[in-house]
Amino acid sequence: MTTSVLKVNPKLDLVLERDIDVPVEKAWMAWTTPEHLKPWFSPKPWVITHCEMDLRPGGAFKFDMQGPEGDKQWFTACYLEIVPQRRLVWTLALEPGFRPSAKETLPGVKSFTAVIEFEAKGKATLYRATALHPDEASAKTHDDMGFTEGWGTALTQMVEYLKSGAI
Amino acid sequence: MTTSVLKVNPKLDLVLERDIDVPVEKAWMAWTTPEHLKPWFSPKPWVITHCEMDLRPGGAFKFDMQGPEGDKQWFTACYLEIVPQRRLVWTLALEPGFRPSAKETLPGVKSFTAVIEFEAKGKATLYRATALHPDEASAKTHDDMGFTEGWGTALTQMVEYLKSGAI
Repeated sequence: MTTSVLKVNPKLDLVLERDIDVPVEKAWMAWTTPEHLKPWFSPKPWVITHCEMDLRPGGAFKFDMQGPEGDKQWFTACYLEIVPQRRLVWTLALEPGFRPSAKETLPGVKSFTAVIEFEAKGKATLYRATALHPDEASAKTHDDMGFTEGWGTALTQMVEYLKSGAI
Repeated sequence: MTTSVLKVNPKLDLVLERDIDVPVEKAWMAWTTPEHLKPWFSPKPWVITHCEMDLRPGGAFKFDMQGPEGDKQWFTACYLEIVPQRRLVWTLALEPGFRPSAKETLPGVKSFTAVIEFEAKGKATLYRATALHPDEASAKTHDDMGFTEGWGTALTQMVEYLKSGAI
């Protein structure tokens, strides 16, 4: 379901793909409204206490993740592509307004671009999250850090949240 | 003429603004077709021998610059925003396909995003090129390297090319 402009490279990228038992409209809403992203986006016991979205190319996607000890990490990403109910692309390599970021995203992970894809399958959805990295070292560190488990846990939380009738 | 999503910071950015005596349609074409970019985009005696454009968000903008001794530099940028005859945005912080770039753009210039803006003024055009940098050091190095003179000379070459009746 990836468009031709996106090229996945197994040496540089991490992919999480899963059929989820929720309709694409709800999965899209969970990704594109702060109130419906906060409840699931961070694997517990970490929580999101703040989230801002300016949903247009160049707009800000800003959120924190707060640990059980109260320690906080902030992330400020830039939206790149928004195709409702199909594809959402944002990057930590740019700040909002398309300015190159001066910061390393995570220790050992220079930066990454996230591509979230959705494909309607009746009342279910084929969901795929891809993290595109600049180099093998960043991809490996992100993998070792638990990308698949972390994003997988968050996705499970998303499905539970959506099935609870929140939307 | 900058949209709200773009925020210029005088400490980080370099701006070249000039009224040019060519219509906006032609200035836009000079920026968006390889055959009409190659003749002017590199300040002489450097020349462009190769240019590729995949004019869509995420698409490639790839070109070389060849010096009089035959030495070549290659640049591979990613288009971010294309608003015909108004604004063209591309970055060297991302490779085509939105992947974060692993390369430093120029020695001492980590990367930059270029925002080229056009405003029709009758048969003339208000033209503005802005380079957005991640940090002050990159901006200063780019400035010392001759951004204003280099991009200014290229713009003069563009106007001459367009006035010669090439388009």
